[in-house]
Amino acid sequence: MKRILVTGAGGFVGTHLLRSLLTQADVEIFAAVYKSTSNISQLLDARHIIEGDLTDANFTQELIKTTNPAVIYHLAALSVVQDSDTHALGIMASNTAISYHLLESMRTLAPQARLIAIGSANAYGLVDPANLPIKESAPLRPLNPYAISKITQEMLALQYALTHNLDIVLLRPFNHTGAGQTNNFVIPALVQQIVAAERGEKSEIVVGNLHTSRDFTDVRDMVKAYILAAEKCQSGEIYNIGSGTGHSIQDIIDTLRSLTARPFTVKTSEQRARHGDVPVLIADATKFATLTGWKPEIPFTATLQAILDYWRSQ
Amino acid sequence: MKRILVTGAGGFVGTHLLRSLLTQADVEIFAAVYKSTSNISQLLDARHIIEGDLTDANFTQELIKTTNPAVIYHLAALSVVQDSDTHALGIMASNTAISYHLLESMRTLAPQARLIAIGSANAYGLVDPANLPIKESAPLRPLNPYAISKITQEMLALQYALTHNLDIVLLRPFNHTGAGQTNNFVIPALVQQIVAAERGEKSEIVVGNLHTSRDFTDVRDMVKAYILAAEKCQSGEIYNIGSGTGHSIQDIIDTLRSLTARPFTVKTSEQRARHGDVPVLIADATKFATLTGWKPEIPFTATLQAILDYWRSQ
Repeated sequence: MKRILVTGAGGFVGTHLLRSLLTQADVEIFAAVYKSTSNISQLLDARHIIEGDLTDANFTQELIKTTNPAVIYHLAALSVVQDSDTHALGIMASNTAISYHLLESMRTLAPQARLIAIGSANAYGLVDPANLPIKESAPLRPLNPYAISKITQEMLALQYALTHNLDIVLLRPFNHTGAGQTNNFVIPALVQQIVAAERGEKSEIVVGNLHTSRDFTDVRDMVKAYILAAEKCQSGEIYNIGSGTGHSIQDIIDTLRSLTARPFTVKTSEQRARHGDVPVLIADATKFATLTGWKPEIPFTATLQAILDYWRSQ
Repeated sequence: MKRILVTGAGGFVGTHLLRSLLTQADVEIFAAVYKSTSNISQLLDARHIIEGDLTDANFTQELIKTTNPAVIYHLAALSVVQDSDTHALGIMASNTAISYHLLESMRTLAPQARLIAIGSANAYGLVDPANLPIKESAPLRPLNPYAISKITQEMLALQYALTHNLDIVLLRPFNHTGAGQTNNFVIPALVQQIVAAERGEKSEIVVGNLHTSRDFTDVRDMVKAYILAAEKCQSGEIYNIGSGTGHSIQDIIDTLRSLTARPFTVKTSEQRARHGDVPVLIADATKFATLTGWKPEIPFTATLQAILDYWRSQ
């Protein structure tokens, strides 16, 4: 039995990753969660759910000692971009501490483990259009403290790979979405409003900038990429993960309109447009795709349908 | 009168920068220091020396309000590389807080100022030999938490330039040395031992790796580069600063031998060899040199002579 630990397992992506890992044979899966939820306890028994705060060094040491993992998927991070300007120092300190304690515990207690460190394409920030689609070598130009904290987490993981010869793979996922993502993110925020329109609660959808374009991958394809990374990627190397296809907010609204019977109008709001938003973020994931054979399989319309179904069920 | 603020002014480089700035006409210079020293009070009167802790947001706000600077040279950081593994989280938290509070104070109280943000070539870390000499586009591969903290400081400064349109220049100085540098750094550590040999206290010099090669610039040339950066560099841009010439520890010992009458033997010590040391770090500073016309003027032998004279006077 291969022992696998997922940090941040209670989050949107963590839950999807657990589901995907549970389809594998001969694995024992441990979920580190800040606070257990019914989502998690439906997937794992209590012995495999470990509740606690990764910013606490003692908790993290105990976690690694108890679970003794062969593979660690490190997803844990405070992740809300919008709040990151106001709570900047706290987000940076927490995300730094989380990764530092995990890496130190790995170095001292599980040095033979493989760690999949989840970074973020937010690191690229204000991309020079000449650098599109974005390769791993593009300069880092973060636009908010959350993005900076993800760079710090990645740099820590890379340092432990280089200095302590630990087996660590560094991923920079581009945008991903699906059922269960909170309405702090753009597509669920749109879908939630459309479902409210279907319920007759409103007829106008408010959005920020219609022209920002993002490389959206279905979260189910994204967690498959994480699992492939654990199987095939090289230690100390950084890999972009994304579909390579951009979807503007306008395109997304048009597709959503085709998936609902209820008509709605769209209003753009300066207030919803994110401070320092990047016009275009599209991945060049050739390095990862060539090595692993990964490609996204779920059509974008099916992703939007899954999100609609999710919000209709809420 | 142009109002200039230097943070970290009490340090080795800060003191040299103050001396160089004081030769300019029509400037009023303020030194922010953690603790005032006789070095500083010889250079500035008490009204221009502001003592306090930049990790304290209130102190930093007051500092910017009082000094109302047109130019800020931001040198402040905990900087001892050797300690950075054992005090990793503290160094990362302090250096992040220092830069965050300074940038926030600048944004709210002095948004018209120009900031010269001092990063570090340590960010490049374990450089692929194919990337030598090192351009600004080389990947960041830090080898210790100090280097990570300097990357975080740089990313914060860059974010404020990009998001808040502040006027911020980002420098990555390579190694620099001179009179006043502490023996935590390699050349002063060698020179101090040679001076001890001259005094008959020892006859054997202990060093780490003889074959590491560094791009050393005299600190007096380096602070001239900082001043040129304030005059000529572009906001939001990153510039390497270094001579482009590597000196191995062996070369340095050979030159020092020619500057002393006292014979000494050399012993290499595993313990002194820094954990995860980079074999070669040499700058390609073409971007900076082309824009500013800077080139180092002090011959390396004169730099070593200045360091010898300094330690002989201690």
